[in-house]
Amino acid sequence: MSNDKQFVTEITPQSEDFSRWYIDTIKKADLMDYSPVRGCIVFKPDGYEIWEHIQEEMDRRFKETGHRNAYFPMFIPESFFQKEKEHVEGFNPELPWVTEAGGEKLEERLAIRPTSETIFGHMYSKWIQSYRDLPVMINQWANVVRWEKRTMPFLRTSEFLWQEGHTAHETEEEARQETMQMLEVYREVVENVLAIPVIKGQKTKSEKFAGAVDTFSIEAMMKDGRAVQAGTSHYMGTNFAKAFEIQYLNRENTLEYAHTTSWGTSTRLIGAMIMVHGDDRGLALPPKVAPTQVIMIPIGPPKTRDQVVGRADELYAELKKAGIRVKMDDRSDVRPGWKFNEYEMRGVPVRLEIGPRDMENGVCVLVSRISGEKKVVQQADLVEEIKAMLEQVQNEMFERAQNFMKDNFYSVNTIDEMKELMEEKRGFSLAGWCGSDACEDKVKEVTGATSRNIPFEPAEEKHTCLVCGQKAEHTVVFARAY
Amino acid sequence: MSNDKQFVTEITPQSEDFSRWYIDTIKKADLMDYSPVRGCIVFKPDGYEIWEHIQEEMDRRFKETGHRNAYFPMFIPESFFQKEKEHVEGFNPELPWVTEAGGEKLEERLAIRPTSETIFGHMYSKWIQSYRDLPVMINQWANVVRWEKRTMPFLRTSEFLWQEGHTAHETEEEARQETMQMLEVYREVVENVLAIPVIKGQKTKSEKFAGAVDTFSIEAMMKDGRAVQAGTSHYMGTNFAKAFEIQYLNRENTLEYAHTTSWGTSTRLIGAMIMVHGDDRGLALPPKVAPTQVIMIPIGPPKTRDQVVGRADELYAELKKAGIRVKMDDRSDVRPGWKFNEYEMRGVPVRLEIGPRDMENGVCVLVSRISGEKKVVQQADLVEEIKAMLEQVQNEMFERAQNFMKDNFYSVNTIDEMKELMEEKRGFSLAGWCGSDACEDKVKEVTGATSRNIPFEPAEEKHTCLVCGQKAEHTVVFARAY
Repeated sequence: MSNDKQFVTEITPQSEDFSRWYIDTIKKADLMDYSPVRGCIVFKPDGYEIWEHIQEEMDRRFKETGHRNAYFPMFIPESFFQKEKEHVEGFNPELPWVTEAGGEKLEERLAIRPTSETIFGHMYSKWIQSYRDLPVMINQWANVVRWEKRTMPFLRTSEFLWQEGHTAHETEEEARQETMQMLEVYREVVENVLAIPVIKGQKTKSEKFAGAVDTFSIEAMMKDGRAVQAGTSHYMGTNFAKAFEIQYLNRENTLEYAHTTSWGTSTRLIGAMIMVHGDDRGLALPPKVAPTQVIMIPIGPPKTRDQVVGRADELYAELKKAGIRVKMDDRSDVRPGWKFNEYEMRGVPVRLEIGPRDMENGVCVLVSRISGEKKVVQQADLVEEIKAMLEQVQNEMFERAQNFMKDNFYSVNTIDEMKELMEEKRGFSLAGWCGSDACEDKVKEVTGATSRNIPFEPAEEKHTCLVCGQKAEHTVVFARAY
Repeated sequence: MSNDKQFVTEITPQSEDFSRWYIDTIKKADLMDYSPVRGCIVFKPDGYEIWEHIQEEMDRRFKETGHRNAYFPMFIPESFFQKEKEHVEGFNPELPWVTEAGGEKLEERLAIRPTSETIFGHMYSKWIQSYRDLPVMINQWANVVRWEKRTMPFLRTSEFLWQEGHTAHETEEEARQETMQMLEVYREVVENVLAIPVIKGQKTKSEKFAGAVDTFSIEAMMKDGRAVQAGTSHYMGTNFAKAFEIQYLNRENTLEYAHTTSWGTSTRLIGAMIMVHGDDRGLALPPKVAPTQVIMIPIGPPKTRDQVVGRADELYAELKKAGIRVKMDDRSDVRPGWKFNEYEMRGVPVRLEIGPRDMENGVCVLVSRISGEKKVVQQADLVEEIKAMLEQVQNEMFERAQNFMKDNFYSVNTIDEMKELMEEKRGFSLAGWCGSDACEDKVKEVTGATSRNIPFEPAEEKHTCLVCGQKAEHTVVFARAY
């Protein structure tokens, strides 16, 4: 079918140029468009709806773990950034500044939030007086801005959408528990909802959040072997409490600094999901976040068309009623083959075909986007069959991604080995590291890879540093990263 | 009970100073806090959750009427505002400008969106080529900024949260239908969810949206007799289509301009809700948006406490399971009377009391926040009884607000009559108007009232202008407004 082939080749193959494949895919699937503002994209409805499903899933878990949502101003007075030294150094280069408003020059410049530790810190210092006021556990869904030099749709845009949780606690222990709890919430959502396997671990000092004591992350592997940091959770110690005077009277009536945390995930998850699951046919969406989970395509000759469409309408209503996100494409001026490609390219997890013979036999055909498997099912069992296939697709996507990560996960002993790997195959490299900045910098310089994290459960323990050969302090995952 | 009395008097009575009552109420009920940025507030969890419930209700209806959500950049290049003359004149004085970002001065200043017609217009011109691309029906939930001189929490803040729908259509008729449909969605949510009765009508020329052909609004009456515009829906004609070249090939293959609409509601709805329902005891929340719908307070002497709390816990679990937003206050160091006042002040619609004797009898007591009615109910029927009382409170709040609006709705024939009314009682005044700017300005100058809208269903038709005595073109609602 030459027509179909032509269609498919509109997307650059992954093996030819992964970045071009990515851009082709998200444009053709209508997830986004470039905006007239440098580095900012428009999230089109199919792209935004993926975010809405991620939000629902995250938000429910945040609330179940005792958090509430709030909303803080997006403007942050310049003086606030000066209060935490590492924080200002980390974020200052990326800030956009409002200098005029309402026809007047402002006395103090206002930054647009790149993250909100400072303004949360300021407010928490007003709200927290006694141990009775603790813990404070607030999350915010918001837009943030980081004026990036190099941008990439979803993965790195100047303005992006995210959630940021900010909590304050009596003790280090409690704050550290919270940090770990939220990292685990992220892992669970990213693995079970987005079907992306991740590696949980701690960031090295050079890669931690500006102002944090410890930063933890989940790291995912894209199909080109590069890493995406899919979520971070920070234990701030008393750094921000000291900078913003978040003090409370403890149970012994003594003034103490609170221990704070913050944690965030963003719309870059959409980009990661695309790069983990997509293939040369285009997008592949995990059913749990797919705007359309099932596409129904009636087939057959014109003379039976009305009958088939009539029956399809009934089935459509049934699926809709069962809460399945279903769409029908009953256009008569477009060939079924073309439609099949179209919805594969858009990543719809399950296709439902129904033709005149299926009608007679009381069946229809389900096709999995991910495996291509075709299954003839009874119309009478359609809702259950579809639910089962959606679940199967969801699980299969996770398994495939997990196998891919295993296949591209290497254990290396020397920087030369890693250099070769990074040039030939990319992927993740597990290596020993002595803990010095010098050796970490060297890895980056020579291989282009950065330390992703120190995994909580490394595949193996490494004993010598890949650069200097000295005793390894940590076993680290290195990778080139987006 | 002197202690309770003292508590209540911490809120300034409405009759003494309505604005102070408002600020006292929202501060004591912990809905918001002032931020370090001029005119911007922090939406605290109980304030923000009201917005979350409004969002859920609105969003569902938007989707049911065929709209999808998307997200557009908050930065708007300065040149975009120049394209629609009225629009730039209307919004320019209120814009904040980003002039520097990423350490460099920007070549073109970027405004922070006060509304997004311009950037939607720009993108729609890229997306719309043919009548087959129409209609485009997109909504966005976002923060916007209007640098206001005088601010008031929720009602008028520099940064606020809102939704803005932007649609493009083939014909004027279709666009006007959409404009009316969304105005009706707003009326329905505001009346049925927020229990605020509104007057639907058209804005006069001087009060319409900058760039619109026609603006329609719903107007609500606060307890001090002033008006709040609770939602607007605009028919833009082809004004923005011409400014941004949103053109399409019609069914006859001729190039035509699209007809566009926009419509918005914001967090000012929270302020309106507070001013419509609150009283001298504090907040009163409609059950459909109340973060806590039922507060459970176990009562009785210490010796029966454990038993009572034990039973209360069971009932709590039952209510929770039934999807009721319930909280328990079983603190033993706070008197029940104090708690009663506390949760009345916070506006919780229904209080559930349970004591040792209730336990024995298998009953508990429900108390309505709005009427004070007490009802002894069987524990066995608790879920249904609570649901019924929540519904009753919701309906009663609407009826009370409706009666208040009727009682403060006047029909006037001359500007002197209106002046007297505005000074003595406020409220809404229905009057005839010749249609001239001069007479409308005169009303404002003399009475402080502005035209709210030309109601679709006026209580009576007026035949002469209240200022000049000439023939009335319109029957108009005037009021002082927030």
